[in-house]
Amino acid sequence: MAATPDQASFEADLAPFFNDLADAAGSIARHHFRTPIDFERKEDLSPVTIADQGIERELRARIADRFPDHGILGEEMGSTPGERYTWYLDPIDGTKSFISGMPLFGTLIALSDDREGRVVAGMIDMPALAERWYGANGCTTFNGRPVSVSATTELAQAQIYTSSPDFFPADDWRRYDTLSRKAMFRRFGGDCYQYGLLASGYCDLVVETSLKSFDFMALIPVVEGAGGIIRDWSGKPLDPTSDGRVIAAANESLLAQALEIIDAA
Amino acid sequence: MAATPDQASFEADLAPFFNDLADAAGSIARHHFRTPIDFERKEDLSPVTIADQGIERELRARIADRFPDHGILGEEMGSTPGERYTWYLDPIDGTKSFISGMPLFGTLIALSDDREGRVVAGMIDMPALAERWYGANGCTTFNGRPVSVSATTELAQAQIYTSSPDFFPADDWRRYDTLSRKAMFRRFGGDCYQYGLLASGYCDLVVETSLKSFDFMALIPVVEGAGGIIRDWSGKPLDPTSDGRVIAAANESLLAQALEIIDAA
Repeated sequence: MAATPDQASFEADLAPFFNDLADAAGSIARHHFRTPIDFERKEDLSPVTIADQGIERELRARIADRFPDHGILGEEMGSTPGERYTWYLDPIDGTKSFISGMPLFGTLIALSDDREGRVVAGMIDMPALAERWYGANGCTTFNGRPVSVSATTELAQAQIYTSSPDFFPADDWRRYDTLSRKAMFRRFGGDCYQYGLLASGYCDLVVETSLKSFDFMALIPVVEGAGGIIRDWSGKPLDPTSDGRVIAAANESLLAQALEIIDAA
Repeated sequence: MAATPDQASFEADLAPFFNDLADAAGSIARHHFRTPIDFERKEDLSPVTIADQGIERELRARIADRFPDHGILGEEMGSTPGERYTWYLDPIDGTKSFISGMPLFGTLIALSDDREGRVVAGMIDMPALAERWYGANGCTTFNGRPVSVSATTELAQAQIYTSSPDFFPADDWRRYDTLSRKAMFRRFGGDCYQYGLLASGYCDLVVETSLKSFDFMALIPVVEGAGGIIRDWSGKPLDPTSDGRVIAAANESLLAQALEIIDAA
């Protein structure tokens, strides 16, 4: 179903609201970054900080105030059902970076049109680096300027990123290991920032596993708006029910080479 | 042999010269960062960029002009012998970061008094982050303000960093893997920045292998001036002939726990 004129207008006007959300999140994140903070262990052992929870609370309040009919799915506070549209929030992606003084943590914000199965807009904001990618309407900007992916088409010339070998189940690691050793080089550590680097053309492939919907929904318009492709490991487009195996590539050629190796390994 | 009054005066006045060197290096690095640059493969497969070579040339010229009697050992241009004092230069530590748009690359500068076997001063400068650690005279500053290591004394509460599993020979990896799994968490990716994070108290342990003298000489006064300890994997102080296995710890307790595990694994 095509968007009605009212819906199109609402969607075209989203950038200022995304920027307000990211500004508010970044203010809280920077307030707590590199200060002693208490954290506890969740069941999955990922650290949860006061900043995580404070940011999600703030973003939820702003969204509920502006769009009371929209649903929200956040990392810390679960799911609030809504009508047609759903916001996906990861208040601090890269919490390990955050609590160890490493500026490579980000806030992920996405808006999905559930009826059309389409991510309307997505943002990767890096509060400690003052770097922000926003993808919407087929265009991705970095700090307000349009960016595009690299022209590298050969895997042997590609720079490939993943966050950590520790995030891979053993069989997935074997596949990633085989793939990444055929690239020009591989580098670890980056979380959401890696997808921004890919959108800006600085790296060529990002491959991860174990991502949740609030981790990857924002990445889709950022990567695609820059001319890249983001899929699951079977080559299918991502949706909120995807299994968390994600591959982002600068182009179809790199994607095809990578998927062939992942599939055969 | 104790430093003569003249030498002491020369050494006490080094901070402005270190800052000038790092400013000059950073200017070249930022000029090339996130622009298309040619690079070639060295025999060891590490990428060498125009920026690497341009920085080392600039630093060597400034040092030769100011201290014509000093020796210089740099990553790119080898060894220039000198009298008593030697400068250790790594123009871009973290070249993979540099060529993939990741701001976690740094310039490492150290001055060694070869006669006394002592590192007089060391600097970790992060040109893309505007972050600089300088260690000298038993004090370490971060952007001009004194910093100190964390108070974490239990390995189970420690945050441990290393750059990449790919830098470890297999047997060393087994030891690191055993050690790091006993920490609160481990994170990959950081190069020289990790030691700055440790000096500022944000992480508690950094363990690496395969470092060269120009990689680790600058780290010694930065880590020690913040109250930390840096050793080889047998617990011995580092000197230019060390084997490249490095462990930096916030305190003796963490160092002892880590070395015991490394030794037993």
